[in-house]
Amino acid sequence: MNPVRWLALSLVPMMALPPQLLLAQSPAVPKNLDGYSQSASSIEQSWETKFRDLPEPARIRENMRVLSAQPHHVGSPYDKQNAEWLLAQFKSFGWQAQIENFYVLFPTPRERLVQLLDSSGKPTFTASLQEPPIPVDPTSSQTAEQLPTYNAYSADGDVTGPLVYVNYGTREDYEELDRMGISVKGAIVIARYGQAWRGIKPKVAAEHGAIGCILYSDPADDGYGVSDSYPKGGGRPAEGVQRGGVNDTEFPGDPLTPGVGATKDAKRLAIKDSPIITKIPVLPISYADATPLLKSIDGRVVPVKWRGALPITYHVGPSTASKVHLKMFSNWDMKTVHDVIARIPGSTLPDEWVIRGNHHDAWVNGASDPISGISAELEEARAMGELLKQGWRPRRTVIYCAWDGEEPGLLGSTEWAETHADELRQHAVMYLNSDGNGRGYFSAGGTHGLEHFIDSVASQVIDPEKNIPVIERTRLRQIARATPAERAALRSRPDLPIRALGAGSDYETFMDFIGLPSLNIGFGGEDHGSQYHSIYDDFYWYTHFEDTTFVYGRALAQVAGTAVMRMADAELLPYNFNNTASTVRTYVDQVQQLLKTEQDKVAETNREIQEGVFSATSDPKEPIAAPKSEPLPPFLNFAPLQNGSHALTDAAHAYESAVAKLESGSGAALDSPGIDAVNHELMQTERAFFLAKGLPDRPYYKHQLYAPGAYTGYGVKTLPAVRESIEQHKWSVASQATVDVGGVLQKEAETITAAEKLLPQPAAQ
Amino acid sequence: MNPVRWLALSLVPMMALPPQLLLAQSPAVPKNLDGYSQSASSIEQSWETKFRDLPEPARIRENMRVLSAQPHHVGSPYDKQNAEWLLAQFKSFGWQAQIENFYVLFPTPRERLVQLLDSSGKPTFTASLQEPPIPVDPTSSQTAEQLPTYNAYSADGDVTGPLVYVNYGTREDYEELDRMGISVKGAIVIARYGQAWRGIKPKVAAEHGAIGCILYSDPADDGYGVSDSYPKGGGRPAEGVQRGGVNDTEFPGDPLTPGVGATKDAKRLAIKDSPIITKIPVLPISYADATPLLKSIDGRVVPVKWRGALPITYHVGPSTASKVHLKMFSNWDMKTVHDVIARIPGSTLPDEWVIRGNHHDAWVNGASDPISGISAELEEARAMGELLKQGWRPRRTVIYCAWDGEEPGLLGSTEWAETHADELRQHAVMYLNSDGNGRGYFSAGGTHGLEHFIDSVASQVIDPEKNIPVIERTRLRQIARATPAERAALRSRPDLPIRALGAGSDYETFMDFIGLPSLNIGFGGEDHGSQYHSIYDDFYWYTHFEDTTFVYGRALAQVAGTAVMRMADAELLPYNFNNTASTVRTYVDQVQQLLKTEQDKVAETNREIQEGVFSATSDPKEPIAAPKSEPLPPFLNFAPLQNGSHALTDAAHAYESAVAKLESGSGAALDSPGIDAVNHELMQTERAFFLAKGLPDRPYYKHQLYAPGAYTGYGVKTLPAVRESIEQHKWSVASQATVDVGGVLQKEAETITAAEKLLPQPAAQ
Repeated sequence: MNPVRWLALSLVPMMALPPQLLLAQSPAVPKNLDGYSQSASSIEQSWETKFRDLPEPARIRENMRVLSAQPHHVGSPYDKQNAEWLLAQFKSFGWQAQIENFYVLFPTPRERLVQLLDSSGKPTFTASLQEPPIPVDPTSSQTAEQLPTYNAYSADGDVTGPLVYVNYGTREDYEELDRMGISVKGAIVIARYGQAWRGIKPKVAAEHGAIGCILYSDPADDGYGVSDSYPKGGGRPAEGVQRGGVNDTEFPGDPLTPGVGATKDAKRLAIKDSPIITKIPVLPISYADATPLLKSIDGRVVPVKWRGALPITYHVGPSTASKVHLKMFSNWDMKTVHDVIARIPGSTLPDEWVIRGNHHDAWVNGASDPISGISAELEEARAMGELLKQGWRPRRTVIYCAWDGEEPGLLGSTEWAETHADELRQHAVMYLNSDGNGRGYFSAGGTHGLEHFIDSVASQVIDPEKNIPVIERTRLRQIARATPAERAALRSRPDLPIRALGAGSDYETFMDFIGLPSLNIGFGGEDHGSQYHSIYDDFYWYTHFEDTTFVYGRALAQVAGTAVMRMADAELLPYNFNNTASTVRTYVDQVQQLLKTEQDKVAETNREIQEGVFSATSDPKEPIAAPKSEPLPPFLNFAPLQNGSHALTDAAHAYESAVAKLESGSGAALDSPGIDAVNHELMQTERAFFLAKGLPDRPYYKHQLYAPGAYTGYGVKTLPAVRESIEQHKWSVASQATVDVGGVLQKEAETITAAEKLLPQPAAQ
Repeated sequence: MNPVRWLALSLVPMMALPPQLLLAQSPAVPKNLDGYSQSASSIEQSWETKFRDLPEPARIRENMRVLSAQPHHVGSPYDKQNAEWLLAQFKSFGWQAQIENFYVLFPTPRERLVQLLDSSGKPTFTASLQEPPIPVDPTSSQTAEQLPTYNAYSADGDVTGPLVYVNYGTREDYEELDRMGISVKGAIVIARYGQAWRGIKPKVAAEHGAIGCILYSDPADDGYGVSDSYPKGGGRPAEGVQRGGVNDTEFPGDPLTPGVGATKDAKRLAIKDSPIITKIPVLPISYADATPLLKSIDGRVVPVKWRGALPITYHVGPSTASKVHLKMFSNWDMKTVHDVIARIPGSTLPDEWVIRGNHHDAWVNGASDPISGISAELEEARAMGELLKQGWRPRRTVIYCAWDGEEPGLLGSTEWAETHADELRQHAVMYLNSDGNGRGYFSAGGTHGLEHFIDSVASQVIDPEKNIPVIERTRLRQIARATPAERAALRSRPDLPIRALGAGSDYETFMDFIGLPSLNIGFGGEDHGSQYHSIYDDFYWYTHFEDTTFVYGRALAQVAGTAVMRMADAELLPYNFNNTASTVRTYVDQVQQLLKTEQDKVAETNREIQEGVFSATSDPKEPIAAPKSEPLPPFLNFAPLQNGSHALTDAAHAYESAVAKLESGSGAALDSPGIDAVNHELMQTERAFFLAKGLPDRPYYKHQLYAPGAYTGYGVKTLPAVRESIEQHKWSVASQATVDVGGVLQKEAETITAAEKLLPQPAAQ
């Protein structure tokens, strides 16, 4: 379910390098690791250095070869076989390991049809709905084991109607359609993949009255428009199809067991009662199949931004001379997911857990998604096994997870986290995720208490192409792409901002439902084209067009493993609240600016309606209606947010000052017994951002700083209750949200202050 | 030679409507026309109203049918026949009319070849270089009379070399190529039409060492990417080719007689000595012919912005497995151009001339370019003929011109203007141009002393689709497209700014070499696709996809005719210097900002080079070199410009105040004999912006406010001596230019002040 990774990563700020490291040609070694006494710090650094020497590209490649050798979707024989192989590997490295099973609803296609009908109802074209084997690519011919092209959790249905092209199928696209006077009521829509998460597209289509939804991959987005078609280049070929779940985003995981683990005897909803199955049938197709459909559409020519890269003039429709017949029926079966859970028990604090995960299931062979990530994770585990032999023992328990069922909807991670929710809230100190890997730039997203932490880790790993720290390369790339104002910020801020996380991989439940400090990391940005969720995302393709030498697989293992070790061994948990506070200040500024922008927009639109701008600029041959006049958005009381943000800033500053004093002392205080009470309090800090009632209309999502957007899917919304209600002009919801979220910020400040009060006094100089 | 009109017009600010007219649903009648005493004003308005009732769409359509019935390029039989028909029409309307002939170099193709050769030199593809007839389109089959597809004034040559794709072929594109490490030395380049004027492309290619240049029309720019292909829609079909001149922009007109009229016995350069013939052979092709060539190119994939709409992955090259063979030889013949010049002698001031022109020659049938414009002009002439019968006599002489030879290089207008240069400088008060017409929005460009004038004319012509003044529709469209800052300006400024003019039509010599107040007007923006300079720009195409009912032809005739009459009949020439002064202030601010931008850019680039940004972000598989470090641009002395601008502002303000006082009096003063001396002085004001030595390196171009860009062709550069020297980092040229241009502004101020001193005293109240 990992989104087309570098579309997202390439646009967002990532991480930081302290200014003193800017010109370093080799990894800088901080004098004292945060949260470590002096002696512990030097021991830790010596273990970490040993660790980073161990991962081998050849072994990561071999992991990929094994794990991607056959299609291995949820419920397939090779999925189970991979889980058992991973289990054996972990055990052979000296880890305690087991498989935990859950039982989930996972529909697979029973009947699929996309036909073009002429005016008499006679079929003139039938879509192939097939990805053909490619001779040079050996695994592409494993036809019998491949999951057919489909969107999981599509409603069953058999519909016929005129066709309308809706661009990416976002809410904004339907607003444009409305102004063109075009309704999708009773029609089948065809939307291109991209911009928003795929599940949003049938959702919004159904909200507008469409009876069916076809998704296709336009070559502008990941085909010949970007890169030569596979196998000449890495781009999606004409028949390539993107599979993927389209379940609604109300909650992640098994559709029948919201909020609880899908254990054998869990209480389950009836399938018909699950709110996350789409309202209309959906099927994904290739651009080879889409071309005749798009050509059949007449009516007005699309707006400029709606054009794709096919050699046709794109029209909006609805088609008048032809209709489309769409049929989609699934086998609504229960399947077993196999999560592999491996442990190294902590030597000193076995009840504090550092968790690392990457999924192992794929839509088909999944060399890039997810095997490039789990192959690195497994190599980290091997390296830690070597350290165990050399005498290393983590202070905290380290838990490595290989999730099953991520692709259809984060099934394995969500059900495991829900099953162990109480333990996790009591014991876990971090969840570190990856979901595949590529060549290029390091990127991290996560909760901002870990910003400084992951930054300092990534400043110690060397980019294999450039021989500079990976964080430095990322920073320089951001400077290259920044506006002057952003550049000034990048050059003056000690840490580079990490992205806020929305949805799209296994961190979601840990962050938004459990409340753990979380990170999601990976490399990429130098590979072009994509075989995302296609049979062609396989070993041959990956080893020809992605991280072909696996040196970035090694870099991922080095960053992730170092982060796990450093978090596991720290005396004081190295959370940094100044970064959280400054990020929150930015968000509070943004939502105020957003309201002003909305006010200005409405005022301007109203004025232009009055001036006659819309009627003067509407071409009578292709009229565009004026938007509706709206009352001016009210001013909102932002004081609770501002006060909360202020309190958080103060508390963070006081805490960090106290810690700095402690660290600059003899350091003895950091290994004093009192520090455990501090850690225990610190483990509440992420959850202090939770509201028990969750977000407005989305009770599953508790975190008040981050959430996937209700209408973006993968895309994050920060301060979501406030931001989305302003965006959607729900003013009474917004008024309540500023109070609620302000309260949450106060609660966070109090939690940090409580931790500060527990800090031991600095040892005498 | 009219550029793809609405690409340009749609992006630039146009004209103004006084705020009091904003909500008018019918044309507002100013109380007193500028430059008119009260009684003269009401008489004038009555004649103008009569005039605007006369133009008939059906007659404009019939003009087009006749004039576009056969191909009529320079030197063709139908070109001469059209000139004679126009002459007869003018005479039949009661005008004095004659044909003036000039003798110009106009090469036509003798041999053309574009072939793809395999590694052994064997041809694998030969371009058709043909535009096939289209059955529904009757004139498309006039194959015998059609000029073959070619670029006039291409050098002769027979070259073979590898092929490099250079995007639009601008200087910026070659900078990107340099950074990719790709040289065009010894190669043939293929560039897509668009962005810059076509003649720039072979010029820049030759400057970089290319041996040949192929131009093609990418469907992204005017083909199926924009509109359905002709004849289904108006878009350029697969085999459509854009012809056009590629002569260098050193001077317009006949290549052998720079600066003097190409009369029979003029002194001529030898062809080999003409500096404006290209250095390398050039040929234009269709995208059907371009596709195999583009597919043959390998090497790296192009940058995102270089992608066109063909269903291929665009590569940069140079091609390694194949070469291109390009052959182009012309018949270098002399041809006769036939300018039709028609006059109505002025009743009171026969020695003051108002000139109106549009060309009549085309590349082929040219229904849109130029017949849609000349057809309206002819209808204006007919309407004025009717007014003559009713007793109207213009105070000044009105001269209507139908130019020949515009397409190859403004031949007819330039040679006429150069021949009559002294008379024109003595007698002419305005040159008003058009060059085709379409459906949609009114647009005007010109010298800013006419901004308020054309604005007030256009506020009295009603848009046929919207029933509001045409200027109002334009203003509302600009508001729709503006940034908030631009919108505020549009809403507060009494006049909407008109565009500054570069090159691309027959106003060029009048404005830049003679020094007349000039305007270029037309309608468009609602038609999509283009058959620009193709055989398909014909009557069938125009009457199906452009101003199909010719109501915008009528609107053009109404605006142009009203402008001519109002200028011809005014007692005091209605030039407005406040608008000129405020425009100049904007330009002076812009060049200062430009220097700062260049300084910031160089400083930033140097800093990023030092930080290692470029090396960190260069993909080792597709490296991009860092730009070269440069010394920081020096600060320049802008005081002469600022002082000149200040003096101009003061002089303009004093003049306008004095005129306002005069107009608010009994008005008798405006028809006093003393007013002629003022007019005589006013006729020097545009030329006061001239420097005898012209622009740096371009002595032909005298005007110091406006010029076509040395590297944009059609695109204007304002304060060109200052702006281009800053853009090109020629600091000593820039230093001199601020002094020179500052002096010119002082000279303008003095000229205006001299006119002010001559104004009669207001009549006693």
